[in-house]
Amino acid sequence: MPVILAKYLKDYLNKEVTLQGWVRLKRSSGKIKFIELRDGTAFVQCVLVKGVSGLEALESFEGLTQESAIEVTGTVQHNPRNKTEELLVNTMKVYQIAEPFPITPKEHGVEYLMDRRHLWLRSRRQWAILRIRHEIIKACRCFFDERDFTLIDSPILGPSAAEGSSTLFETDYFGDPAYLTQSGQLYSEAAIAAFKKVYCFGPTFRAEKSKTRRHLTEFWMVEPEMAFVTLNEVMDLAEEFVSYIVDIVLANRKSELALLERDIEPLEKVKRPFVRMTYTEAVDKLHELGSDIKWGDDFGGDDETILTREYDRPIVVHRFPASFKAFYFELDKENPELALGVDILAPEGYGEILGGGERSADIEHLLKRIEEENLPADAYDWYLDLRRYGSVPHGGFGLGVERTVAWICGLHHVRETIPWPRMLSRIYP
Amino acid sequence: MPVILAKYLKDYLNKEVTLQGWVRLKRSSGKIKFIELRDGTAFVQCVLVKGVSGLEALESFEGLTQESAIEVTGTVQHNPRNKTEELLVNTMKVYQIAEPFPITPKEHGVEYLMDRRHLWLRSRRQWAILRIRHEIIKACRCFFDERDFTLIDSPILGPSAAEGSSTLFETDYFGDPAYLTQSGQLYSEAAIAAFKKVYCFGPTFRAEKSKTRRHLTEFWMVEPEMAFVTLNEVMDLAEEFVSYIVDIVLANRKSELALLERDIEPLEKVKRPFVRMTYTEAVDKLHELGSDIKWGDDFGGDDETILTREYDRPIVVHRFPASFKAFYFELDKENPELALGVDILAPEGYGEILGGGERSADIEHLLKRIEEENLPADAYDWYLDLRRYGSVPHGGFGLGVERTVAWICGLHHVRETIPWPRMLSRIYP
Repeated sequence: MPVILAKYLKDYLNKEVTLQGWVRLKRSSGKIKFIELRDGTAFVQCVLVKGVSGLEALESFEGLTQESAIEVTGTVQHNPRNKTEELLVNTMKVYQIAEPFPITPKEHGVEYLMDRRHLWLRSRRQWAILRIRHEIIKACRCFFDERDFTLIDSPILGPSAAEGSSTLFETDYFGDPAYLTQSGQLYSEAAIAAFKKVYCFGPTFRAEKSKTRRHLTEFWMVEPEMAFVTLNEVMDLAEEFVSYIVDIVLANRKSELALLERDIEPLEKVKRPFVRMTYTEAVDKLHELGSDIKWGDDFGGDDETILTREYDRPIVVHRFPASFKAFYFELDKENPELALGVDILAPEGYGEILGGGERSADIEHLLKRIEEENLPADAYDWYLDLRRYGSVPHGGFGLGVERTVAWICGLHHVRETIPWPRMLSRIYP
Repeated sequence: MPVILAKYLKDYLNKEVTLQGWVRLKRSSGKIKFIELRDGTAFVQCVLVKGVSGLEALESFEGLTQESAIEVTGTVQHNPRNKTEELLVNTMKVYQIAEPFPITPKEHGVEYLMDRRHLWLRSRRQWAILRIRHEIIKACRCFFDERDFTLIDSPILGPSAAEGSSTLFETDYFGDPAYLTQSGQLYSEAAIAAFKKVYCFGPTFRAEKSKTRRHLTEFWMVEPEMAFVTLNEVMDLAEEFVSYIVDIVLANRKSELALLERDIEPLEKVKRPFVRMTYTEAVDKLHELGSDIKWGDDFGGDDETILTREYDRPIVVHRFPASFKAFYFELDKENPELALGVDILAPEGYGEILGGGERSADIEHLLKRIEEENLPADAYDWYLDLRRYGSVPHGGFGLGVERTVAWICGLHHVRETIPWPRMLSRIYP
């Protein structure tokens, strides 16, 4: 008897197969007994009928508890009422009868569930979210692989607290301090001179004491970087990338989105061209919408929320005040108060999911900015080498995986978008 | 004029195109001048001819230094002597004349090059190695994606020094100690009850004070884990996986292997079935080969080297003394002194690239082993939950990316297999 994955059940109509999985629910109705089995790839109704199913299977049914592990063999049949395939069980093997499972269909508090994250993953919603996460990550990699980018992993451990150590996790590296990465960008800038187009994709860390629905201390980021491009090409690629991800998820994960009761109409509107506006235009628009943001301030979460609710597509905001952007940005030749940065804000109030821009190719400008910001010039010496040996216009961006998952899944908080969330007060299990 | 990547040059024979890149070498021969241009995707010979190429291009040529950044436009022509396409240059734009580049065709010491890793990446060998690394990582992900595995990222930061903290990097997590992961396995074991087949793929860390050619402090590992499998299925998947990776690299990266002067004959022999032997058989064989290993000792690097030189395919070693294996292994029912572990040793002296096995499904056994090893039972309470709620036979393995890259590329040391190596005395740049 072939052991199959539940997701392929419909390919075996009227055939005998074996499924292996866990009991999600069971119920009896007269001579008929039902098990909702989940095997990690789908959920299947298994039916036991007195006089049809094996006696031992019928007896085993009585002892089954939620999350008990079983193997069932039977015939795949179509259930016209549910419009789906189910298994008419003949025999059953019990691997283990589970102790009373601490997560039941009743409501549990978030902290209770987070303490049991290793078990909570089995619930339908968490399952659906993490399947979509996988699809998004796969889409990210495919997008860059298809476009001749080379994956160049940036290091996690780095030697210098270049931008100030207040939000860095520190460790003792054989006697010297080392820090967990916040971004692979500077390393990717080195790699483009070897590979032209690169991306890194790994975990990044921020030791921020903020407790918001948009922050994790450990999160994954994909960061492409390209040589011989300017801001416009960075913006074009970023738009293409975000719409590609949404297309792929809509094409491959409709059933998971349905399970999450995600309204997919707003996702179907995520088509190019996105809305494009300068930071200055965005501030004007925010004033219209009642915000008291001052020109020169960075957007707050609330600003992003009210702005993105105004449009049905993502917003590409560009040309920010240089004063709050990092030292490495190229300036706008038409107005050197502006840095050639770009953010993409996801619609429906989700806000920033992507940030990047054009980097300065000019060593004199970088040295001046490093001095202005009181940064340790020594720590950047290798980075400045990139302008000494074959400097070219270049740029890139970073996309936060968890914020993208939250938006596409329609979740209020990023804590459910990663298997094992790490937050200010959460590092267990 | 289309700006194209050098790798697509042959598609534009007799057409006019623009290339952007860096000067690797230049030379003159009478009326003809040559630039070897690298654009990160390939190396192209660019030819300038007096009376044919533009005057300004011919003048610009004189000032070019190694690593200068340029854009050249011209006609793609076939060079019958080199049997390759080259560019007959018409015009040239210079982005930057590089300062004297510190890495020249002469020999440099490894420490000198490692201090300049951000520039060394541009050399042909490093370029080829990291292109192969990308191909290997992509193959790993494709393999598991094609086989219905769900990517479930394990956390990097964890709360407990479960297996002893001597080789762990520690950080201050808002007042409590936290540790960088050495493996995602325990977390993956939780995830299989939700997804049946999962893998994690991320950086892992070992604060080992060892200085060998096989050790990095930061390295990448892919770790699949499966529910409802026993040791045999783990071994089968591991063999299939390793041969898949080699096939993909041979199919897609022949030119990079050639650039490394890698003899591909040994790689072409990496076909299933691999050589399979128990640990006990391996020890007997090692004695034949002159090793003084005692039954009960783990293999040393030297043992792996002499053993793997005996066979032309990878060796699958299984059933190890339980005494030196971790607490979570399932024991061999026929001989409970043996743990159902499996290692794969790469041929040509490379040794261990993969390790795994069948995990114990039995909570009583695990509790006993945790006590025997004096491990903190509290730290494993969530892990033991996995045996309370739907425990099933399961197993998996981890493959080290850098050791696999070293083997496939034929490198003596793992330090060149990762863009930014971290070792006992190396965390810069």
